[in-house]
Amino acid sequence: MGYKIAVVGASGLVGSEIIKVLESSSLLIDDLICIASEKSVGKTVVFKNKTIKIGPLLENSFDNIDIVFLAAGSKVSKVFAPIAKKAKAIVIDSSSYFRMDDTVPLIIPEINPEALINHTGIIASPNCTTSIMLMPLSPLHKAFKIKRIVAATYQAVSGGGYKLINALLEETQAKLNDPNAPTKYGFNVYLHDSPIKENRYTEEELKMGNETRKILNDPKILVTSTCVRVPIIRAHSVAINVEFRKSFTLEKIYEELKKAKGVKLLEDFTLQKFPTPLDATNQKDTLCGRLRLDLTQKNTLELWAVGDQLLKGAALNAVQIAEKMDEMSLLKI
Amino acid sequence: MGYKIAVVGASGLVGSEIIKVLESSSLLIDDLICIASEKSVGKTVVFKNKTIKIGPLLENSFDNIDIVFLAAGSKVSKVFAPIAKKAKAIVIDSSSYFRMDDTVPLIIPEINPEALINHTGIIASPNCTTSIMLMPLSPLHKAFKIKRIVAATYQAVSGGGYKLINALLEETQAKLNDPNAPTKYGFNVYLHDSPIKENRYTEEELKMGNETRKILNDPKILVTSTCVRVPIIRAHSVAINVEFRKSFTLEKIYEELKKAKGVKLLEDFTLQKFPTPLDATNQKDTLCGRLRLDLTQKNTLELWAVGDQLLKGAALNAVQIAEKMDEMSLLKI
Repeated sequence: MGYKIAVVGASGLVGSEIIKVLESSSLLIDDLICIASEKSVGKTVVFKNKTIKIGPLLENSFDNIDIVFLAAGSKVSKVFAPIAKKAKAIVIDSSSYFRMDDTVPLIIPEINPEALINHTGIIASPNCTTSIMLMPLSPLHKAFKIKRIVAATYQAVSGGGYKLINALLEETQAKLNDPNAPTKYGFNVYLHDSPIKENRYTEEELKMGNETRKILNDPKILVTSTCVRVPIIRAHSVAINVEFRKSFTLEKIYEELKKAKGVKLLEDFTLQKFPTPLDATNQKDTLCGRLRLDLTQKNTLELWAVGDQLLKGAALNAVQIAEKMDEMSLLKI
Repeated sequence: MGYKIAVVGASGLVGSEIIKVLESSSLLIDDLICIASEKSVGKTVVFKNKTIKIGPLLENSFDNIDIVFLAAGSKVSKVFAPIAKKAKAIVIDSSSYFRMDDTVPLIIPEINPEALINHTGIIASPNCTTSIMLMPLSPLHKAFKIKRIVAATYQAVSGGGYKLINALLEETQAKLNDPNAPTKYGFNVYLHDSPIKENRYTEEELKMGNETRKILNDPKILVTSTCVRVPIIRAHSVAINVEFRKSFTLEKIYEELKKAKGVKLLEDFTLQKFPTPLDATNQKDTLCGRLRLDLTQKNTLELWAVGDQLLKGAALNAVQIAEKMDEMSLLKI
């Protein structure tokens, strides 16, 4: 017997990636229900050569469902995660709504699978940029203990959904046709557009700190960051300056990274080849490289990480959570 | 009597900007000689409604010239700066060749004009990214003393000349026509392509430290950085995390920046409007904004600076050096 799975937000960028990732998942799947908002109801999705009609989100959508992937934003998660939980489905939520809830584990399966054990029905998948940053940093934290991170991000517009992708493509074409065409996204860089809090940081920047502390289970880790969107379609990059409590050598850093699952070193100092977003697009691994000692502060490393924020930063991680729970026999309540 | 001026590299990106900036300069100009490499000789340049033919670079090009702007790269500067100096011209060099030479002042006129006094005929104009970073940081250094900077850059392809601009535009169009078209620059982000030194830093990254210490005349300032190119045409951005020796308040930071010449604050936290490269393109001022206290370390500020690297980062600064020397009566030898 396999699982009955529902994907909410099936027509969105993350939801459709979840369906793609499920195609090659190790999960035994008996049935896949695809759910989306009104305007996508009736559209179809192809899954394992079967055409599935997208249905509406209803109070009883989760009756007899084992696993629900929520990928339709915080408002939907707030209302429907409790409904799904009540229906005895396991909820894997890609939104930020439950991430900092003490009763909800926030999971990257390679990093903190043990936090799944005491779950109470809802599991949160982290912020995309945070996930990409933590994939190389987590093994280094285990070895050398992170004290403080200074990060600057280079985020793709697909973090803002199909709407931003289309705006980028249209504006870019307009600017190629007429160099004086006014654009916001096309050939431009702008500070991340998530809401700004009273302390002057964007929600995105604050997530990078709060979620890092929760996932690495270390309330003392300090994170400051500047989140920036760049005019690219897919995959986020992060320039990371990280200070450790313990001393290290570059050799030991390489040792840890080479052992790390889901992390791939891509660097060739001679050919000057380092990870780019195009390298990371559609890749499951988070790429890292350009490792160097920060010459201005002891125990400090500079590195560059790039990952597909729709995969490891969202859809892939959500499916990997389910796979890990299956492996840990945590799925059937 | 006005000055006789020569621009070497007159057909290049920086050289042609120098000519444009000279059009509205306060310098009295009697004659403008435009010089470029073989392939541009014979082309014409329009200056103050006069058509000027581009000539070749010769041993005697600088006889009877008062000011020479060198904008043809380090190799040309190495050979021809001494020749121009011997001909008793003042050399203002945009290349990196003389920047760290102890006998050559490295000048941003708003910051260290006093270093011009003891010049010996050659004056260097700094690296573009360094200039853009220092425009807002210099007044803050005077007030609070910089201890350490962690910077990440978002650099336009025009830093690599017309060749890179054309590659970006062509590749971007190819990718819009076919999403699977392979590109290096189009819709991609990549680590800066200046040569990598043995310590694993690029020349560009090392310049940001070395030139900062020389311009601010403080050998203790620490700078670590990651230099990155983003797929935009013009204007560089820098995410700056800066630790000061003295304590400060945000109010005092604003006070200093509002007084600073050549710096323009552009921030609206309510409308979430902060400087972008398109805002800075063709602007003389360096824009800054998104000021916030680094909540993870005392005496530390996060800020975002954006400037037109062909203007304040190169051509404008070079012309401003000449104007400042004129003002200080340093021009006629």
